[in-house]
Amino acid sequence: MTTSPLPNELDWTDLAGRTLACCLEIAACTEEPGRITRTFLCSAMRGTHARLDRWAASLGLQTHEDAAGNWRATRRSGRPGARTLVIGSHLDSVPNAGAYDGVLGVVLGLGLLEALGDTPLPYHVELVGFSEEEGVRFGVPFIGSRALIGTAQELLTVTDAQGKTVAQAIIEYGLDVAQLAGAQLKADVLGYFEMHIEQGPVLEAEGRSLAAVSAIAGQSRLNLTFTGKANHAGTTPMSLRRDALTGASALVLAAENLARNTPGLVATVGALRPLPGASNVIPGEVQLTLDIRHARDEVRLGALDELLTLAGQIAEERGLSFAHELRLEEHATPMDPGLTALLGEALEAEGHVAAPMVSGAGHDAMLLGQVWPASMLFLRSPGGLSHHPDEAVREEDVAAALRVGTRFLRRLAEREEAR
Amino acid sequence: MTTSPLPNELDWTDLAGRTLACCLEIAACTEEPGRITRTFLCSAMRGTHARLDRWAASLGLQTHEDAAGNWRATRRSGRPGARTLVIGSHLDSVPNAGAYDGVLGVVLGLGLLEALGDTPLPYHVELVGFSEEEGVRFGVPFIGSRALIGTAQELLTVTDAQGKTVAQAIIEYGLDVAQLAGAQLKADVLGYFEMHIEQGPVLEAEGRSLAAVSAIAGQSRLNLTFTGKANHAGTTPMSLRRDALTGASALVLAAENLARNTPGLVATVGALRPLPGASNVIPGEVQLTLDIRHARDEVRLGALDELLTLAGQIAEERGLSFAHELRLEEHATPMDPGLTALLGEALEAEGHVAAPMVSGAGHDAMLLGQVWPASMLFLRSPGGLSHHPDEAVREEDVAAALRVGTRFLRRLAEREEAR
Repeated sequence: MTTSPLPNELDWTDLAGRTLACCLEIAACTEEPGRITRTFLCSAMRGTHARLDRWAASLGLQTHEDAAGNWRATRRSGRPGARTLVIGSHLDSVPNAGAYDGVLGVVLGLGLLEALGDTPLPYHVELVGFSEEEGVRFGVPFIGSRALIGTAQELLTVTDAQGKTVAQAIIEYGLDVAQLAGAQLKADVLGYFEMHIEQGPVLEAEGRSLAAVSAIAGQSRLNLTFTGKANHAGTTPMSLRRDALTGASALVLAAENLARNTPGLVATVGALRPLPGASNVIPGEVQLTLDIRHARDEVRLGALDELLTLAGQIAEERGLSFAHELRLEEHATPMDPGLTALLGEALEAEGHVAAPMVSGAGHDAMLLGQVWPASMLFLRSPGGLSHHPDEAVREEDVAAALRVGTRFLRRLAEREEAR
Repeated sequence: MTTSPLPNELDWTDLAGRTLACCLEIAACTEEPGRITRTFLCSAMRGTHARLDRWAASLGLQTHEDAAGNWRATRRSGRPGARTLVIGSHLDSVPNAGAYDGVLGVVLGLGLLEALGDTPLPYHVELVGFSEEEGVRFGVPFIGSRALIGTAQELLTVTDAQGKTVAQAIIEYGLDVAQLAGAQLKADVLGYFEMHIEQGPVLEAEGRSLAAVSAIAGQSRLNLTFTGKANHAGTTPMSLRRDALTGASALVLAAENLARNTPGLVATVGALRPLPGASNVIPGEVQLTLDIRHARDEVRLGALDELLTLAGQIAEERGLSFAHELRLEEHATPMDPGLTALLGEALEAEGHVAAPMVSGAGHDAMLLGQVWPASMLFLRSPGGLSHHPDEAVREEDVAAALRVGTRFLRRLAEREEAR
């Protein structure tokens, strides 16, 4: 069966076209007229779920909203003792988003189930459209996937900008917060599979449509402060300055240099604020952020140590003081080697390069990968663009993802049958 | 007479103490309770002028407010055809100012006239407390000194934040705007002399009380922009970035390096703003300011050319674009060599170092130096601090300035008599 061809009668281009059309219809479900914004349990989620229900119904799938607002569709296997494959991505968005981040993965799940047709599988499929991944409304991400693994209870009292709790949001949407525990998937899960746009420029730069993901990078985010002495820009000679901005600039360049010379490392200073910030005053203080990511925690933490040591040296040489505060630290999440190898085989069988890439952004697979074997398939992002109205995906890449995904599900069926 | 001693009977410490006490009384004249703020023609100017009037009256001097709100006191010479020496500084302040910036120079002028006593001089003295130098209320500086040289008319229609014009401000204060031309000093002026706190750390670092000023530095102020491409900090490898902030940082360090290696040059990036300015987004644009000053225009302009060329190279190497906009350009103003040499002799006679220094900040002497021979005497600024409530001056330095200033006026008298 490993060499069995994909169904010839299937029009993959048509299926890809309908996948993209469905994403665009969902894009019209928004809480902000004129732009795409869909936060946790906003009323625009109702139309989103209704659109997914229509496609699912055409495939004879049962669907429901769980108590965390996740959209769920189940394809049952006839095999006794069958395990479950979870396929999913998220349906919420950042403000002024594109049409594909998250949504495409859920709709592609429906596309795969359509492509499978009546082919019997030795595992159940639980397709999930997560209600929340971006962290926009409550400042904490992954509310949907947390509910799926039974760890959302602790978030019920978190409040949004209006002071409403997660519990209130669930009730106001019309769901039963008392049933939140019931949203947990209590099944023998063989793995999690997520398809997602890359949200970066790597595949485009390499001329590839698709890639499996080997790991989701770990990241550290810090606030840094250099403190010197504010002084008059005209009356203070260079030799008597304690300029916090020149010190901060030296660190910005040191971080870039270290990342350029450490394969796979990315380091970014995204925000930087000199104080008082007047053109004729030497900055007495600079506050800046540092974001540093790598697929291996020891590389990231080693690089961070090196940069903090360097920052201390820069400060000392320049008569400044330096302080740092860790704001966020997430461990790297390796994808499951077995599932990722299967995905690589499916890619090769379809004429793609098998070599997996690292995801620099977080995904639901980061959370679910902590409890289940997880795997991800990236689709090329034209221009590397995401979190932007111009976010796009090529129809040919969607067709390729449908073919590779179908092969992957069939290979997984072989493996499961051999179990 | 060049070696004649200063009057022994004069208690210089007492005179310095009264000079400082007068500055502190004027500090109580403010438009903002609890902090010192005195902008152009605010009502707090009335108390300021009244305090100066009391001292002037004790010396038998005639005073008046001119139509630009300048406080003026005249000491007439008995000599036929006598020329006029203008002594002055400004009485307005920045918001939340110290007690000495500007004010000290006017009060020291009264102190010098008291120290001279009845000594006949071969020149008239016009002591001026300028109504406006800081540019706070109307965004243009030197309204007072412009009126003195007859170039304030063009400012009458400039508006403040409330939409009031300079002309309205003059009328509301109770002055006759039709008389503005009469504020012009129509006299044969032999020179201008201004005493001012240094507002910088140089004299303190060199252990000096006082210095003559050789020139007021010229300055260029620019807005610079580096434009790259905003991208996701996690998904964009270092090799595919066009980070505007690392480019801007390279220029910040290049400016510092060039200024450190060019004697007398100061270069400052005081404001810098990365956009969009989020910790997880590579900056796609950075707006920054550049302030560059030197006593010689050709050195400043050469350095500016070099930095703009460097910025273009940095941009090219990094796939960025670079643009600049000149916001302000002021030529350097050399002080009059003859008057400055006289001041140097007075300093040496009092046991000070004669070597003059460059003023990095602007002063009324910058404007008046364009039409009259000008000279300045700086007093040490403890901590280099100015434009700050903790701005200070040492009593011993004020006493030294009174002694040196008195010697300077007497030497000038000798020179004028020999003319």
